[in-house]
Amino acid sequence: MGAHKLSVRVYYEDTDFSGFVYHAAYLRFMERGRTEMLRELGLLQRELALSEPAGTLFFVVRAMEIDFRRPAHMDDLLSVETRLEAIGGVSLTMRQEIRGGDALLSAARVTVALVLNGKPQRIPGPIREKFEGSLAG
Amino acid sequence: MGAHKLSVRVYYEDTDFSGFVYHAAYLRFMERGRTEMLRELGLLQRELALSEPAGTLFFVVRAMEIDFRRPAHMDDLLSVETRLEAIGGVSLTMRQEIRGGDALLSAARVTVALVLNGKPQRIPGPIREKFEGSLAG
Amino acid sequence: MGAHKLSVRVYYEDTDFSGFVYHAAYLRFMERGRTEMLRELGLLQRELALSEPAGTLFFVVRAMEIDFRRPAHMDDLLSVETRLEAIGGVSLTMRQEIRGGDALLSAARVTVALVLNGKPQRIPGPIREKFEGSLAG
Amino acid sequence: MGAHKLSVRVYYEDTDFSGFVYHAAYLRFMERGRTEMLRELGLLQRELALSEPAGTLFFVVRAMEIDFRRPAHMDDLLSVETRLEAIGGVSLTMRQEIRGGDALLSAARVTVALVLNGKPQRIPGPIREKFEGSLAG
Repeated sequence: MGAHKLSVRVYYEDTDFSGFVYHAAYLRFMERGRTEMLRELGLLQRELALSEPAGTLFFVVRAMEIDFRRPAHMDDLLSVETRLEAIGGVSLTMRQEIRGGDALLSAARVTVALVLNGKPQRIPGPIREKFEGSLAG
Repeated sequence: MGAHKLSVRVYYEDTDFSGFVYHAAYLRFMERGRTEMLRELGLLQRELALSEPAGTLFFVVRAMEIDFRRPAHMDDLLSVETRLEAIGGVSLTMRQEIRGGDALLSAARVTVALVLNGKPQRIPGPIREKFEGSLAG
Repeated sequence: MGAHKLSVRVYYEDTDFSGFVYHAAYLRFMERGRTEMLRELGLLQRELALSEPAGTLFFVVRAMEIDFRRPAHMDDLLSVETRLEAIGGVSLTMRQEIRGGDALLSAARVTVALVLNGKPQRIPGPIREKFEGSLAG
Repeated sequence: MGAHKLSVRVYYEDTDFSGFVYHAAYLRFMERGRTEMLRELGLLQRELALSEPAGTLFFVVRAMEIDFRRPAHMDDLLSVETRLEAIGGVSLTMRQEIRGGDALLSAARVTVALVLNGKPQRIPGPIREKFEGSLAG
């Protein structure tokens, strides 16, 4: 299946005095991409946080490998592509790429885990099914 | 004339541990609104920076009065409205409002100045004409 | 009495492609200054948030007037000076200045209010007394 | 030899609505640690950028592997530890850890490269010697 795609514009706030986009800004762009992929699956993170009587439920980033290949600049229009690669008991692995036109600027593998009050939590069946649809889709 | 409007989604990066949007994030949203208003007038800030043989030309924020009236939350879709109020010799004054649905969340008056190598610079005629069209429009 | 002073170093994250410090970064520096002034008065904001059985208590920024007078650069060591100017029923007014060496770079008047579950809340006596000591001090 | 250590305080700006520190904030903390390690070696990045007649010289992050093990909170005082692991022709590899008290919160391997006008650049002898002293230290 295809990746989820989100367009992101580069603003002043994303750049640094080198003239290029600040490296940590790519993590913010990727987080936006994951949030929009979840939204497309019907998962609003704010609702998720409020959904458990026993506490607050969040997806948190556990690990990330990221390559910064080419720079981006002020005013660039970037595409954040997010693919779900694997579903574990308590975590998800995603592949994310940021492109400017055809050029691959940055690529990452990201592991996110579901936590309840800070403790790893099995991904509930209904949420798992949504992700499986995205894998298979 | 109408205000320039930009839709902005609230992501994790914009919130803080109070559960609401961090106050300085509204300044980032307003800067995005001004950048898009300039883009609509045909002014790309990156090109502007490179346009002068004598140095780099930038719009910088000189002063800001801002009221934070109501909080915004994760996942909210906000509207940033930007109106040009006045054009001075070296500066522009804008009124900016951030709304969530019908509610006014935050309102500001912003003065930006054109600077060349850090020194105030008269706004060149062709740029001034674009702004005057926006005022009159 | 003297102002509370906090030293802040400028890093990559604070700059933008103009080569200077991004304007909203000064709000982050000022918020650090207010947090450290509160800490010096014995008020930890995280503890404050957890202190009320009826909900979470936070100081939030209600209004800000800020002038950006001179730019700061990567590697600069800045001083954030915070003075409590007035204590109202539900709010505090502070004067904050950011200096680089002797030069005044940025100056603001900031109104913060105490809120409980998002609603303005009278500043409790023991907290008020700490602030009054700072005013009189 | 020992690691370079930098103390970092967690402020509002570093947290998100989950109540914990936002994951990308750790990259900002690590960048501060690398900047201070360079400063201790006598390398100011702003001066470095201005040092070449042929253009601007910057260290840029090429790749990063990072584990987020435990959360940090508002008001925490963290320690950023930076060790130089290897010096290549155009790049450096560093190991960075963020600790809160004795607990390891986050650990990363970071590759930075020297670039001149965006192109990889051999690390000049005098700079290389400073790093070698840090390795051998």
